Formats: sequence, structure tokens, C-alpha cells
Amino acid sequence: MSNSNGYMKFSNRALDIEPFRVVEVLTRAKELARQGRDIIHLSVGEPDFPTATPILEAGIRALSEGATGYSEVGGIPELRNALSKFYAGEYGIDVAPERILITPGASGGLLLICALLLNPEDTMLVTDPGYPCNRSFMRLIEAKAQLVPVTSQDNFQLTPELVAKYWQESTVGAMVASPSNPTGTTLKKNQLIAISQQVKKLGGQLIVDEIYHGLGFKKYIPSVLEIDSDVFVVNSFSKYFGMTGWRLGWVVAPEGAVKEMEKLAQHLFISSSTPAQYAALACFDEKTRFILDERKEVFRNRRDFLLSALSSLGFSVPCLPEGALYIYSDASKFTEDSDFFCMDLLERQGVAVTPGTDFGLIGAKQHVRFAYTADVEQLSFAVDRIATIVT
Amino acid sequence: MSNSNGYMKFSNRALDIEPFRVVEVLTRAKELARQGRDIIHLSVGEPDFPTATPILEAGIRALSEGATGYSEVGGIPELRNALSKFYAGEYGIDVAPERILITPGASGGLLLICALLLNPEDTMLVTDPGYPCNRSFMRLIEAKAQLVPVTSQDNFQLTPELVAKYWQESTVGAMVASPSNPTGTTLKKNQLIAISQQVKKLGGQLIVDEIYHGLGFKKYIPSVLEIDSDVFVVNSFSKYFGMTGWRLGWVVAPEGAVKEMEKLAQHLFISSSTPAQYAALACFDEKTRFILDERKEVFRNRRDFLLSALSSLGFSVPCLPEGALYIYSDASKFTEDSDFFCMDLLERQGVAVTPGTDFGLIGAKQHVRFAYTADVEQLSFAVDRIATIVT
Repeated sequence: MSNSNGYMKFSNRALDIEPFRVVEVLTRAKELARQGRDIIHLSVGEPDFPTATPILEAGIRALSEGATGYSEVGGIPELRNALSKFYAGEYGIDVAPERILITPGASGGLLLICALLLNPEDTMLVTDPGYPCNRSFMRLIEAKAQLVPVTSQDNFQLTPELVAKYWQESTVGAMVASPSNPTGTTLKKNQLIAISQQVKKLGGQLIVDEIYHGLGFKKYIPSVLEIDSDVFVVNSFSKYFGMTGWRLGWVVAPEGAVKEMEKLAQHLFISSSTPAQYAALACFDEKTRFILDERKEVFRNRRDFLLSALSSLGFSVPCLPEGALYIYSDASKFTEDSDFFCMDLLERQGVAVTPGTDFGLIGAKQHVRFAYTADVEQLSFAVDRIATIVT
Repeated sequence: MSNSNGYMKFSNRALDIEPFRVVEVLTRAKELARQGRDIIHLSVGEPDFPTATPILEAGIRALSEGATGYSEVGGIPELRNALSKFYAGEYGIDVAPERILITPGASGGLLLICALLLNPEDTMLVTDPGYPCNRSFMRLIEAKAQLVPVTSQDNFQLTPELVAKYWQESTVGAMVASPSNPTGTTLKKNQLIAISQQVKKLGGQLIVDEIYHGLGFKKYIPSVLEIDSDVFVVNSFSKYFGMTGWRLGWVVAPEGAVKEMEKLAQHLFISSSTPAQYAALACFDEKTRFILDERKEVFRNRRDFLLSALSSLGFSVPCLPEGALYIYSDASKFTEDSDFFCMDLLERQGVAVTPGTDFGLIGAKQHVRFAYTADVEQLSFAVDRIATIVT
């Protein structure tokens, strides 16, 4: 059974994997902008700041010095060491550089982990709502994401009870994200411990997406590495470090998995971007951190503004988004068709936001994700425009 | 059934995918170099020139201007247009920019094509010897590369007869490379036509690896795009354009496949490196092309030198390597165990080369791949050292 467009057969996986709604929104938003419309972009999960100057300068220096060849498959030793020091300084934990693999974006890390752990027909628990690409990476290799409905009662996160309830013969592990995309909620230390123990008890593997960890607005958000060294952690230079277009991430793997992952990375990537890695070395300079932490405060301020404004309009946000770049709101007061709602908002008012249908099935048609990737003035204009169609 | 290291289960695919021998050679070569040994590196397929200055300068300019965000999933329009013009100028053919997808290295392109075309258990014909990662990409998604033994009689390339002979119920296509890694042989226009017609007759899809096309030493090496617009072509900025560590490649796809490939790329990559794409725009400047073409002549000269020297020593190279960076030699006069031969050559004489076992099964233990990625003086030293262990 294959999809066909008349002369060419596509794989079933190509048929199964759905387009990103956010890209459809973005494409239309760009069309409208070209027509001269004033569009406010609150759709894509990309900080609206350029890469910080010290990182740019390090990148320029690397290019001037000709750092343009392939690099070690697990990353340049300097960057693995810098991340090891980062974990020591930031979290007070000891993560050996050898356990840290540099990857082509967090995307590369997710592919490696799925390829390493999942046989065909194996399943992995993921939250609904959750990051859509997790499902696609599993589908790619003929395994399957099992969507676990999570609710505001559980802060939109997995619990040990949910893990046990949805665990099947075919389940090999569970994936959580803290802070989460799209809800921005986080897991407390005792929650991480409980989930980790539950997954271990069931003989599975825990994977934690900490891509938005640097953009956490609570005083303390624990890394799972503080409580468990047998987990896989996916992280990225894209969000807090502001290097989206450079395509650079990392994985912290259990010691026994590193060699196998490096072997897979040889075949799948050869190496990660070398100039990007040398640029990323500047991420850990004091000057850079100051810039990044200041930006984090800007994001926190935007969250506070937008959360309050959306609530006033009647959007419901039952759990405080404690990190990331998003407010995932229940828009059921206004729509039962979030795809239409988002396209209508874009067409009529020029505000680009993402329908819940990107993130799962449960309540997806009543939810909308707002990314606060514009300054407060723009957010304020956006709120005024949204008001015209919901009031 | 899973591989296990005591506490963790790995997938069968992780077990099946073999390590690159070339990386093992490289790792040991680096160890020896750190110990103060003088090593001549003829193993990895990476030009020993830094990225050309105009490309570096374009990269630096892009960074200075803050081109650091995500870019369009199929690549920045400027680069797709530049490649379209490149095909018109270089090959006299019309390839619409929309058919050209920028990818994270040729690796990204190979993953996309495999994901698009192959269901589990489907097979794809590939040459033995051939590029090892092709097999791994197919294994990744639970499909299978079917190795077709090719011989010097057929210039180490597929023929319509071989395609017919090895075609099975499960076969969905055939993959060829011109110039080929590891043999450097190319396909003539009439051969491309014959293979294309045969694959079409059998209802399959032809994929052509043209990664080394810019490093062809014949006056005319045809692109398959001159004779067929229904094929997938994989290409790269790594080899001729000298941008290995930037991780940038492209695919030319049949018109009807582009939308599906872009959808897959959204999930798997989000985007290719943005700074790399802006840097790559300078690849097509007259000044850059002059530098690159000069380097090509250097490679041709090295090939001539090394081919003659190796032949004098008793290595047999039945087909002239017409492009790429390699001489794939029959070393059966000296060894029946190329893995041992290569490690021995490295340990005793400090010359790093790649055993045939990386490239397939047929004759692999009697073959050795020499990459001419060092200047003629170094190559001459290498030949002297090789002579000490084979004479």
C-alpha cells in the first residue's frame, strides 16, 4: 500500500506524517506580508533576537581561522568540556564530557535517541499536547508514539500513575519535557524522581526534553540529571542561547549508550556544524550569559503581559507557563475549530498564532498557542486585534 | 530481540549498523599523532584545503548582518535560484529552483529520499563497492539496501542488465554514483539513459549521487538531469565547493515529490544552517570558481601521481578513477585482510588509509582506498613508506 501521485510511489510514513500547521500559518503570513499587510508573528518558536554579539564574534573568528572542516562525530572536545562545566556551575552536577554528544540541533539528538532505542512497533509514551516532531521521529523509524492525554490537573505533565496506566507490552520508554512545548509547565524534583522510578520499575528508558530549560522563569527548575544519570537528555543552543539557524544541540546520554550513539551519528550526520560549535563556545562567557539572562527577563515580562491580557479577553490558561516561549490557551469560549480560528485571525487581523492541532488530539480544536516572540508593544497591538474578533 | 549492555536495551538497527572503519583508522591516527608520530592522512574523504576565502567572507558577512535565524525549510530562495542558474550555466539544463531542496549535508538529502520512498522491507539496489552510509540510511527506516556486485568489467557501475538481474518484488529503485565513492568511476550519457530506462521499465525510482560531480577529471561528465527529470539527485557543498564542516547539501527532486520532501524536512531538520546557506551563495562567484577549479587541477595531478606510484608498487587499479578524491586499489598481491593491512600500515609507517571493508563485501578484504587528500610531496613520502611494507 503506497501513496502515489500518479507516477511516483511514496512511503506510508510520508503519507502518515502530517504537515506542521505552524508552517502553513507562517507561509500564509509571509504571503500577506509581501502584499503589504502588517503581520504580528506569534507562531514560530524562535526568539526574536539575533544571536548575541559575543557568539557572532566567536563564529566570525572561527571562520577567519578556517575552522571549516569536519569535526569529531561527538563534537569538538572544547564544547563538550564547556557543557560539562556548565552543568557543574549551573546545576552543581558532574556530567562527564564524554557523556555529552553535540548534535545537528535537538532534531539530530531526537533522531539518534529514537534510532538507538526503538524497534519497529515499539512504542514510547509522549504527552498530548506535546512537541509534534517527537511523533514524526518515531514514525520515521517505524516505531510509534503513544499519546498520553495530560490535563491541567497534572500541570500538563506525565505522572507515575499515567505512566503505569498507559504502559504496554510494546512500550520501551517515556518522554517528558520540562519546560514543555506548548504548555510551558515544568516538573518538580520529586515529580522527576517519581517518574524516573516508575519508568525504571517498568524496565523502560526515560528521555527528558530540556530544550527550554534555560528559559525557565521559576527560581529553580531541576534538570533530571540531578537525580538520574541513566536518562537521555535532549537540549539545544537554539532557544535560551539564541542560535536557532546555526542548527546545534546536544544530548546527555547514559555512559553505556555513548559509543552506540556516536556510531549512528557517523552514518547519519558525519559531524555537526564546525563553525557553529566554535561559535557556541562563547555561549558560556560571562558577557554572553548577561545578555541571555537579560533576554530571559524580557521573555518573562512578555509572558506576564500576554497572560494577563489573554485572560481578560476570556482565553483560559489553567496552568502557569513557567518557561519556554508559549502560552497554550483554551479558546473554547470562542471556537471549536482552532485551525479556522487561527487562519481567520491571520486573514482578518494579521496576527499569526498556532492552532492546538499541531500538538496532539485532546482538546486540540479548542486550543491555541501564542508564542511571545514580539515585544510588549507588538503584543499589545496583537491583543487589540484579537479582541476585535473575540468580543 | 534486543541488544543489551546489561542495563539498557538497544534497537536491532543499532546492532546491525556497523562502525565506519575509516573512523577507527582516523581515531587511531589521531592518537598516534598526539604521541608525536608523523602521520600522513589519506583516509577521510575531505579536501585538505580550507573553505575558499570568498565563501568564508560571505559567511562572515552573513554573521555580521545577523543571518542567524531559521530559514525556509527548502532553503533560502537566493541559494535555490543560484543553483538553478548553476545548472543552466554548467550543464545547459533548466532546473526550476522549486525542485532544488537545500539539505543539512548530502546526509540530510539521503535521509529525506529514503524516508520518502522506502517502506519497511522494501529494497533499493546499490553498488558493492559503494558509499556505506546509503545502507545505513535504509536500515535506519527498516528498509534494506541490496548490494549488487559490480566489477571492473562494468567500470564498477550498475548496468541495465545488473538492474534487471537483481530486481525483486521488494525493489523500489536503484542508486548509482557518478563519480563513485570509492572507485571514482563515472557513467557516460548513454549508460545513464540505459539505466534510467531500465529502472522506469521496472516501475522503480532512480537516485543518482552526484556529490563528486564537481571533482570530475574528464572533459565531460553528464548529470543525469540532462536526460531525465524524474530522478532524485543528491549533491553537496562539501567536496568540490570545499565546505565539509558547514554541513550543506542539496537534492534535486522530481516536481511531484518536492512538497512531500519539504514536509518531512520540517519535522526532521526544521531548517538547514542559515549562515552556511548565505556563505554558499559565494560558491558561484567567478573568483570562487577560479579557486575551486584550480584545486580540481591539483587533485587531478595528485591522482595521476598516486595512481602511477601505486601501480609501480604492485597495487592494481583496473579502472581509471575519473573523479572524486580516491583510488580504490586491489591489494591482493599484499593482503587478504585489508583491515589488518591498513592498521599495520598506520602503526608501522604512519600512513592512514581505508580498508575496503567499509564499502561492501565483494573483494573488500583485498581492497584499500587511498584518498589523495595530501600534497604530492606528502603523497611521495607516503608511497615510500608503503613501499617498505609491500616490497
